[in-house]
Amino acid sequence: SGNVVSFCREWFIKVWEFCTEDVNRVIFSLKVGLAVLLVSLLILFRAPYEVFGTNIIWSILTVAIMFEYTVGATFNRGFNRAVGSLLAGIIAIAVAQFALCTGRVAEPIIIGASIFFIGTLTSFMKLWPSLVQYEYGFRVILFTFCLIIVSGYRIGTPVRTAMERLYSIAIGGFVAVLVNVLICPMWAGEQLHKELVSNFDSVADTLEECVRKYLRDDGSDNSEFSKKVIDEFPDEPAYRKCRATLNNSAKLETLAISASWEPPHGKFRHLFYPWSEYVKVGAVLRYCAYEVMALHGVLHSEIQAPYNLRIAFQSEILEMSTQAAQLVRSLCKDISTMKRSVQTTLVKKVHISTERLQRSIDMHSYLLTSTPDLSDNSSKPPPKLAHALSATPCELSVYSTKSQDDKHDSFETISNKLPRDIPSLAPAGLVRVTSYHELMKKQQRRLLSWPSREVDEFEGVLLEMDSFPRMKALESTAALSLATFTSLLIEFVARLDHLVEAVNDLAQTANFKHEGI
Amino acid sequence: SGNVVSFCREWFIKVWEFCTEDVNRVIFSLKVGLAVLLVSLLILFRAPYEVFGTNIIWSILTVAIMFEYTVGATFNRGFNRAVGSLLAGIIAIAVAQFALCTGRVAEPIIIGASIFFIGTLTSFMKLWPSLVQYEYGFRVILFTFCLIIVSGYRIGTPVRTAMERLYSIAIGGFVAVLVNVLICPMWAGEQLHKELVSNFDSVADTLEECVRKYLRDDGSDNSEFSKKVIDEFPDEPAYRKCRATLNNSAKLETLAISASWEPPHGKFRHLFYPWSEYVKVGAVLRYCAYEVMALHGVLHSEIQAPYNLRIAFQSEILEMSTQAAQLVRSLCKDISTMKRSVQTTLVKKVHISTERLQRSIDMHSYLLTSTPDLSDNSSKPPPKLAHALSATPCELSVYSTKSQDDKHDSFETISNKLPRDIPSLAPAGLVRVTSYHELMKKQQRRLLSWPSREVDEFEGVLLEMDSFPRMKALESTAALSLATFTSLLIEFVARLDHLVEAVNDLAQTANFKHEGI
Repeated sequence: SGNVVSFCREWFIKVWEFCTEDVNRVIFSLKVGLAVLLVSLLILFRAPYEVFGTNIIWSILTVAIMFEYTVGATFNRGFNRAVGSLLAGIIAIAVAQFALCTGRVAEPIIIGASIFFIGTLTSFMKLWPSLVQYEYGFRVILFTFCLIIVSGYRIGTPVRTAMERLYSIAIGGFVAVLVNVLICPMWAGEQLHKELVSNFDSVADTLEECVRKYLRDDGSDNSEFSKKVIDEFPDEPAYRKCRATLNNSAKLETLAISASWEPPHGKFRHLFYPWSEYVKVGAVLRYCAYEVMALHGVLHSEIQAPYNLRIAFQSEILEMSTQAAQLVRSLCKDISTMKRSVQTTLVKKVHISTERLQRSIDMHSYLLTSTPDLSDNSSKPPPKLAHALSATPCELSVYSTKSQDDKHDSFETISNKLPRDIPSLAPAGLVRVTSYHELMKKQQRRLLSWPSREVDEFEGVLLEMDSFPRMKALESTAALSLATFTSLLIEFVARLDHLVEAVNDLAQTANFKHEGI
Repeated sequence: SGNVVSFCREWFIKVWEFCTEDVNRVIFSLKVGLAVLLVSLLILFRAPYEVFGTNIIWSILTVAIMFEYTVGATFNRGFNRAVGSLLAGIIAIAVAQFALCTGRVAEPIIIGASIFFIGTLTSFMKLWPSLVQYEYGFRVILFTFCLIIVSGYRIGTPVRTAMERLYSIAIGGFVAVLVNVLICPMWAGEQLHKELVSNFDSVADTLEECVRKYLRDDGSDNSEFSKKVIDEFPDEPAYRKCRATLNNSAKLETLAISASWEPPHGKFRHLFYPWSEYVKVGAVLRYCAYEVMALHGVLHSEIQAPYNLRIAFQSEILEMSTQAAQLVRSLCKDISTMKRSVQTTLVKKVHISTERLQRSIDMHSYLLTSTPDLSDNSSKPPPKLAHALSATPCELSVYSTKSQDDKHDSFETISNKLPRDIPSLAPAGLVRVTSYHELMKKQQRRLLSWPSREVDEFEGVLLEMDSFPRMKALESTAALSLATFTSLLIEFVARLDHLVEAVNDLAQTANFKHEGI
C-alpha cells in the first residue's frame, strides 16, 4: 500500500505541475463545465423545459461540440455549425416538400437518392483544398440533413423538426459563445502573437548557444551527433526550442485562421488585423532557422577545425553573432510591444561586423589551407586586423607549414624560432604548439573513424597512398569546416535582411506605433 | 452569358482534374453516400423502423461523424465513440440511480453537479499531452453523459435511453466500418508507406537538382533568392517537394497513429507492424533534408564562387552527389519493395567519392584563397588527382595569383605564359581567362550590392580602405562559398550513415525480406 500511496502522490504532483504551468488549462475546463451546466439548467428547471421541450437536448450536444479552447476557434466552429445547419435545413425542407408531392411510392426513393447525393457531395467538397478548413461544416450539413429529412418522413413535420433543431442549436451556440467570451477569454490572436515572439527568442538563443559552444573547448568531444542523429542534446535547451520552431508551421496557420474569426480585442484594436502576416513572418523566420540548424550540424560534425583556428577568429565571430542575435531580439521586441523602431543602426552594425569577419577570414584564408609555399618565411602573411587576437593566426601559419615535416622532430626548431617571430608571446606559443599538435592527432583519429562503419576498408584505401598528401587532406579539410561555419553565419545574416523586411511589412499593415514619435 | 459558359467550363475542367488526379477521392465520397444511405434505409423501410424506433437516427449521426478517409482513422474514431459512449452510459446510469435515491429535491442538484464535474474533468483530461489523441472520445463522453442523464431525468428511463442510444450507435458504427473496409479500403499504412517513399525520392531529386544547377552556368543570375526569400522557384520542381517534406512531421505522425489501428493487410502482413519506425526514419530523413536546404541556400546566395572554380571540382562533386542520391534512392527502393538489400557497396562508394572530393578540395585548397606567395612560380602547386579535370585548377591558380596585379595589363603575359605551362589547353585557357576575369568583375558588383539596403554606407566604409585588400577579400570569400557547398555535401553524406542505420532498424523490426535469399 506504500507503493500505491507514493504512486498517487507522484501522480498528484504531476497533475498539479501541469495545472500551475498554465492556469488557463484549469480555467478552460471550468468554463466547459459551466457552459454544459447552464444549458442543462434549461431542462432541469421546469419552466424553460415546458417552453422548449425535449428538443433542447440538441443544445447540449452543440455546446459539447462547439466549445473550443480559443475564442476564434469557437467562433469558427460555431459559424460552421450555424451555416451548416441552416443550409441543411433549407435543402431538407425543399427536398421533403418535393418528395411529398410525388406521392407515396416515389417519396422514399427520392429521399434515399437525396441522402446518397448529399452524402457524396459534402464528402467530396470537404476534400477540395480551399474548403478543407470548413470540414466540420460539411459534416454538420450531412447529418443535419439526414436527421431532418428522415424524421420528417417518419413523423411528417419536416419544417417543425428543422425549426426546433435550429433554435436549440442557436441556444447552445449562444451559451457556448457567451461563456467563452465573457469569462477569461483566451484569444487565438494573443497566442499567435506570443508564439511568434517566443520563436524569435528561440532562434536568437540557439544562434548564441551554437556560437558559444563552437568557440568553447572544454576538452569534451562535440561529435555526439554521430551517436544519435536526433539527439535531445540535454545541454542545449535553446536548440530544442528552435527545433520545435521548425515544425510549427501548421500550428501558426491554425492559430491565424482562428484569430481571423476574432473581433478586435486587447492590444489588437483595429478591424481586419493582418494575422496572415504573422504566418509570413514565421515562415521567413523558419528560413533563418534552417541556417541555424546547419550551424548546429557543423558544430556537431565529426570534421572539426582545430580549436586554435576557431579561437583565432573568436572576436569577429562572437561580435557578429551577438549583433545578429541582438537584431533578432530587437525585431522580437518590436513585435512584442507592437512598436515600430528604426532598425537601420542595428542592421548596419550587423553588416559591418559581417564585413569585418569576411575580411578577416579572407586575409587569413591561408590559415584554412596549408600551401607548401608558405614555408619560405621571406614572404610574410598579411597582418591580421588589429582588433583580432593578434598572435594566434601567425603562429598557426608557421606550425601548419611545419606540420608537413615530421612533427616530432621539428618541435624544437619551431619553439626555437618562435621568439624571433613573435617575441612577446613565446611561452603561450609553446603551449599552443603542443595543443595544436595534439589536436591534429585527435583530428586524424576522428577522421579515420569516419565513416563509422567502413573503417576497415578505409584504412586500406588510405594506407595505399603515401602519407604526406593524406596528412594534408585531413588537416585542411578540417580547417575548411571553419569556413563553412562562417559562411553559414553570413548566409544567416543575409536572410536577416528578409526578416527585417517581413517584420516591417507586418508593422505597416498592423499599424504598429512609431517609437519615440 | 458567354462568360458564364466559359466560367462553368473552366470550373468543370478543374473539378475533373481534381478527380482524375486521385480517383480515391471520388471513391471515398461515394462510400460516404452509400453508408448514410444504408443507415437511412433502416428508417425508410417499414420493417426495421418498427423494430428499432426513432432512436435509429443516432446511427445516422454516428456514420456521418465516424466515417474517415482511411480505415485506421475510422477505426480510431469508432473506438473513441464506442468506448466514450459506453463509459458515459455506465457513469450516467450510476449517477442517475444514485440521484433517484436521494429524493425529489436533491436529484436535480446532484444531476447538475455531476454535469459540471464531468464537463470539467473531460475537458481537462483532453488537454493532457498523452491523451490528446483521444480528444474526440472525451467529447463523446461529455455529450453522451449529458444526453442520457438529462433525458433520463425528464423521461424517467435512463437505462432504456442509454441502451437504445448504445445499440443505435453500434449499428451506425458497424455500417461505417463495413462500408469503409469492404469497398475499396484506403489504408493509412499504405499512405504512410507511399509518403515516406516519395519523401526519399524528393530529397534525392533535390540534391541532384541543386548540384546540377550549381555546376551549370547559363549566364543567369542565381541570386533570385534575394528578391523573395520564400520563392516558388518555378524551375526547381524537386525543391518544392523537398520543402513539403520538411513540414510533414505532423502528417506522418497522424498517419502512423491511424495505421496502428489497422489490421494486417496487403503487403503489411504481420501483426503489430512497426509503423512508429516509419516516423523515426522520416525524422532522420528530415535531418538530411535540412542539409539540402542549406545547400539550396548556398546555391542562391549572393556570394558565389566563380564558375571556373566550381567547374574545377565538377567531376568530384557530381560523382559524390550522384552516388549519394543513388544511395538514397536505393534505400527508397528497399522500403518501397520491402526488401532488405546490403547497402555496403553503395555506402562504400559514397564514402570513397566523398574522400576523393575531400582530398581534391584539400590539394587545391590554395584555389580557395589567394596567398601572395603563390606568385613565385618556382614552387608548383601539387598536381591535381589524375581523374579530376586536369587543366582548370592549375590555370586558375595562375590567374588568381596574377589577378592581384592590374588584370588588364597582365592579360597578354598570362596568355603567353599559358602554352608553356599547359601546352595542350592553350586556346581553351585563353577563353577561360576572359570569362574568369568577367566573372570576378561581376562578383565584385554582386558583393558591393550586398547587403542590399546598406549600399551607400558600405561604399563609404569600403572606400576608406586601400583597394588591394578589398579586392582580395571579395575574391577569396567568394571562393570559400565553394568550400561551404562541399562541406554541406560531406555533412549530408555523414547523415546518410544515420539514415542507412534507421532504414536497417526499420527493415529488421518490420521483417523485410532479404534480397537474393
